[in-house]
Amino acid sequence: MEVKNNIILALDLMDIIKSFELVESISKYINTIKIGYPLTLAEGLKSVTVFKENFEFNTICDYKVADIPATNEKIADLTFKAGADSIIVHGFVGKDSVAASCDVALEYGKEIFLLTEMSHPGAIQFLKGKGEKIAEMGLELGINNYVAPSTHLDRLSSIRSVLGKDKFIISPGVGTQGGNPNDTLKYADALIIGRSIYNAENPEIAIKEIIKEITV
Amino acid sequence: MEVKNNIILALDLMDIIKSFELVESISKYINTIKIGYPLTLAEGLKSVTVFKENFEFNTICDYKVADIPATNEKIADLTFKAGADSIIVHGFVGKDSVAASCDVALEYGKEIFLLTEMSHPGAIQFLKGKGEKIAEMGLELGINNYVAPSTHLDRLSSIRSVLGKDKFIISPGVGTQGGNPNDTLKYADALIIGRSIYNAENPEIAIKEIIKEITV
Repeated sequence: MEVKNNIILALDLMDIIKSFELVESISKYINTIKIGYPLTLAEGLKSVTVFKENFEFNTICDYKVADIPATNEKIADLTFKAGADSIIVHGFVGKDSVAASCDVALEYGKEIFLLTEMSHPGAIQFLKGKGEKIAEMGLELGINNYVAPSTHLDRLSSIRSVLGKDKFIISPGVGTQGGNPNDTLKYADALIIGRSIYNAENPEIAIKEIIKEITV
Repeated sequence: MEVKNNIILALDLMDIIKSFELVESISKYINTIKIGYPLTLAEGLKSVTVFKENFEFNTICDYKVADIPATNEKIADLTFKAGADSIIVHGFVGKDSVAASCDVALEYGKEIFLLTEMSHPGAIQFLKGKGEKIAEMGLELGINNYVAPSTHLDRLSSIRSVLGKDKFIISPGVGTQGGNPNDTLKYADALIIGRSIYNAENPEIAIKEIIKEITV
């Protein structure tokens, strides 16, 4: 996936009009959006279709799918049918559940992002140090795209080591959660940024400042 | 929660008309439904509202929420606003994420079900033996309702031991996944049953047979 300016806009709003206006206001700086589960819950799967049709952006549906195989399959099917290019699937649910999503992606010629580890404090309470094992499972399943946290660079770096340089890693946590763009981009291919942009008084100025900050 | 006949119907279909017809056909045997994420993804939050308004059933939204605190909060808010009585939240995301959902439930006077452990084979790949710790965290957070698997009775029994007899446990895995209703009800307060009912040629006969089988 080619991500313009290394920035993926996290659309974590709950209103499609506001989301549309936000995307429109910064559309020349990005080509990839991550659509949050709250937006889709509030507005339905048109929250995917509308951005695909109007902007031809790469769309990553961040539904953090974490269910049994039969349900993971249904969720992936609906999401790809709505026009998504990819869907984020939790790794901790195990190989059978992740494989069920991969199989659907393959049918549609679309992709899975495997979530190896999250970026909030609670993320390591029950899954400390499991990110590498989840990444290894992803390699076994032939997955090319991964999500890993920028709030703990040692973790991100370690997950990159497992995956090797050719896999594609996107990373949340830069900005509001404290991660630094340049440090993160040493190990990740693209930054997922939401609040620092959509909560800014002027999102265009905010994204331009982030782009200026990126030197790698 | 009072669950009629100890059976919660898992609405894992993706079509609201078919779901409505199914619920109508067995509505005298149940008073509680679990609405799957695929149904809501396909049909929007009206998939919650329609059952609340037409049947006055207890509605449990099985969205297996597994995100950072800020996003868990948004998902819970939308779900309760749509009329859900409760929402299923993954425990493995840690105390901060689960607490964020609990806070929203409290505001609405609604409830959380904490998912301690899942029922498919992959469930224990990364979280083996963590169910008890997740249950303990639930007790610390003052959560009254839990989900635990019936496919591994030793696990269900162990999680019941941690929670004590007064907490409410619902359990998936009976039927298609192999769990037995009476064995499960020794430790759980209600069974979550989907495929054995909705895939049956005659769902009414199927649910009557399950009810007849239940002796506890």
